[in-house]
Amino acid sequence: MTVSPLAPESFPAIPPIAGLTLSTAASGLKYSGRDDMLLMRVGEGAAIAGVFTRSDTAAAPVIWCREALAARPADARAILVNAGNANAFTGSGGMDAVEESCRGMASRLGCDSGQVLMASTGVIGEPLDVPVLAAQFDDLANGTAGWHDAARAIMTTDTFAKGACASVMINGVQVRIAGIAKGSGMIAPDMATMLGFIATDAAVPHHVLADLLAGATQRSFNAITVDSDSSTNDSVMLIATGAASHQPVSSADDPRLDDFRAGLDAVMQDLAQQIVRDGEGASKFITISVSGAADDNMARLIGMSIANSPLVKTAIAGEDANWGRIVMAVGKAGAGLDQSRIGVAIGGIRIAADGARVEGYDEAPVASHMQGDMIDIEVSVGSGVGAARVWTCDLTHGYITINADYRS
Amino acid sequence: MTVSPLAPESFPAIPPIAGLTLSTAASGLKYSGRDDMLLMRVGEGAAIAGVFTRSDTAAAPVIWCREALAARPADARAILVNAGNANAFTGSGGMDAVEESCRGMASRLGCDSGQVLMASTGVIGEPLDVPVLAAQFDDLANGTAGWHDAARAIMTTDTFAKGACASVMINGVQVRIAGIAKGSGMIAPDMATMLGFIATDAAVPHHVLADLLAGATQRSFNAITVDSDSSTNDSVMLIATGAASHQPVSSADDPRLDDFRAGLDAVMQDLAQQIVRDGEGASKFITISVSGAADDNMARLIGMSIANSPLVKTAIAGEDANWGRIVMAVGKAGAGLDQSRIGVAIGGIRIAADGARVEGYDEAPVASHMQGDMIDIEVSVGSGVGAARVWTCDLTHGYITINADYRS
Repeated sequence: MTVSPLAPESFPAIPPIAGLTLSTAASGLKYSGRDDMLLMRVGEGAAIAGVFTRSDTAAAPVIWCREALAARPADARAILVNAGNANAFTGSGGMDAVEESCRGMASRLGCDSGQVLMASTGVIGEPLDVPVLAAQFDDLANGTAGWHDAARAIMTTDTFAKGACASVMINGVQVRIAGIAKGSGMIAPDMATMLGFIATDAAVPHHVLADLLAGATQRSFNAITVDSDSSTNDSVMLIATGAASHQPVSSADDPRLDDFRAGLDAVMQDLAQQIVRDGEGASKFITISVSGAADDNMARLIGMSIANSPLVKTAIAGEDANWGRIVMAVGKAGAGLDQSRIGVAIGGIRIAADGARVEGYDEAPVASHMQGDMIDIEVSVGSGVGAARVWTCDLTHGYITINADYRS
Repeated sequence: MTVSPLAPESFPAIPPIAGLTLSTAASGLKYSGRDDMLLMRVGEGAAIAGVFTRSDTAAAPVIWCREALAARPADARAILVNAGNANAFTGSGGMDAVEESCRGMASRLGCDSGQVLMASTGVIGEPLDVPVLAAQFDDLANGTAGWHDAARAIMTTDTFAKGACASVMINGVQVRIAGIAKGSGMIAPDMATMLGFIATDAAVPHHVLADLLAGATQRSFNAITVDSDSSTNDSVMLIATGAASHQPVSSADDPRLDDFRAGLDAVMQDLAQQIVRDGEGASKFITISVSGAADDNMARLIGMSIANSPLVKTAIAGEDANWGRIVMAVGKAGAGLDQSRIGVAIGGIRIAADGARVEGYDEAPVASHMQGDMIDIEVSVGSGVGAARVWTCDLTHGYITINADYRS
């Protein structure tokens, strides 16, 4: 598979996170010649938080994780990941398959099955072959691997492995944050899912971790879209091993976490943007900034309406300064706007203000901006304080080729 | 332009509607060598009802029509239509342009400007050149044309003219219904809008007409989608000239209107389906039926989620029996479903039931159905009485070519 033209030059050098062990294995469930399983394991005293798809057809591993984190929020010990089968829409047999997998893994790790979380990505509706996975459990329980191996093991139709890291201070003590992600459409051809796993050696209790993850997810993975389709398996989990020696913090609002929060945002936004850069058929990376809305949610609604518009995305693919389509997408969002307050700029050049095109508008500099591969769209909708920034890619022949030009 | 492979064989033979006069003209505003203006005019005693886009960036003619129909619901006399400029996002100058156009047309017809309605389709954000239109007002006021001429005059990127008609009985008296529509995406390249104009010689007061139109629109134009983008200019208007000699009816629920309502549904669904058949790049016509929902609105929400999913639409373009993508689209609708009640059938063949694939599922007959150009998808989501049927087309390279492979 050709690597996306928007891919970073290389996978970053990500140091280990103290207290976290990674291992990978090749089950051969769907792929051959590559690892397709990942185990992330931590010791006692670590905490894991998760956010999951809101789909009504959430996959069995998603349902398992929600229940496990609700029942025993403070003592999860491992995350088991497989690529190639999503274990989605598989009925009660699908739940049995997760339980059997987690019980098998737990017996090797010396913990309860409820302390093992699971994430799956791959085809929807096919039963999961647990024995094929279980044959690798011993190796996973005993092996070690690096972040690059881990990022590769969870790929499906991704064209490059995705990782990011940061080093921050909590109350004068250095703490590391590292993460990996996969995803190439909101759901790729036959292959469900966006997955993200972030780890830190910070010592943060589960409820604080959950707060930090929820906020950072809104500003990263929930601020991207490739094709408006959302997966049955989307999962983002944040592990804190507690190996760092800083003083304990007991609230997400603690100012000692300000630097950590900024670092977490940076890592998660980097990963989220890498998913957009690997968007199916993407040739341009698009940043949409909305300001002046009544609140941030309204701004996000408008931003996502633009980011999900096929006509906006095809215009950008065609390098067409077709700003009328942006106006259309703002209007259809249903935010209840006063159109006489709407303004549009592309590439920093003001095109429309107060509900109409500006006097003497010259398309030439906008057309020039459209020829680059980083496109900036700014929309102002009033004088409110609500703002949002979302990221997407263009819609090209490549998307159709990947998703339509084959028979499964 | 190549005619859509899904186009009907020919434009139907539509007889005149007593009491309604059509006329067309060529302004040359954007197109050359073809008519681009339409006037539909009626005498006293006629009624006109309208439904319009809910976009926050509704075009000036839409705002004009809403206000005119609210202020003088019972005595509209004409509808003026132009193709080539949408008069959308044109600020106060856009409203002035509508008023000037309607005043000019009204002076030729001997009525007030508030009795002339207007509909526009074309590029967004460009000022409307009223003098260019006004040069045709005398010819429009005095000319006559047939339905096929009218259907052609309102086309933008449509690949064929769209018309339909029916003959029904009201209380033993024959009444005719005829209509035309245009549209080829929810919004076509640079060309905004779905427009529909339906006329009947029935004698129905404005408030009954408005009720009938609202219901029929839900079951027709609001049940189709090409690409999920909705226009700034979408307008559907229903004219009743009152020329027929049946006894008056004063309520939309009057059983004497049952046959009329069925005929109106037939005409409007035919027109709506023709728009889907002319969907940009369409190669397959897709019918999605949802049943068992709590209510019809929920069923429609689920149906539209499937119909708007790029991954479902590309799978169908690829003739891929990828039913997992339908499950994904049902889940992301956010209807709050119990997935253990969900079933899926394609081409009448049951694929999944009670939240999982059926035993012994054989893909061969489904794959065979996918090779045709009429695709049927049925989804059941429970035991509720809510049901809906929506129509869409597939997403192909043709859509990308039309919308991205050019510079404006």
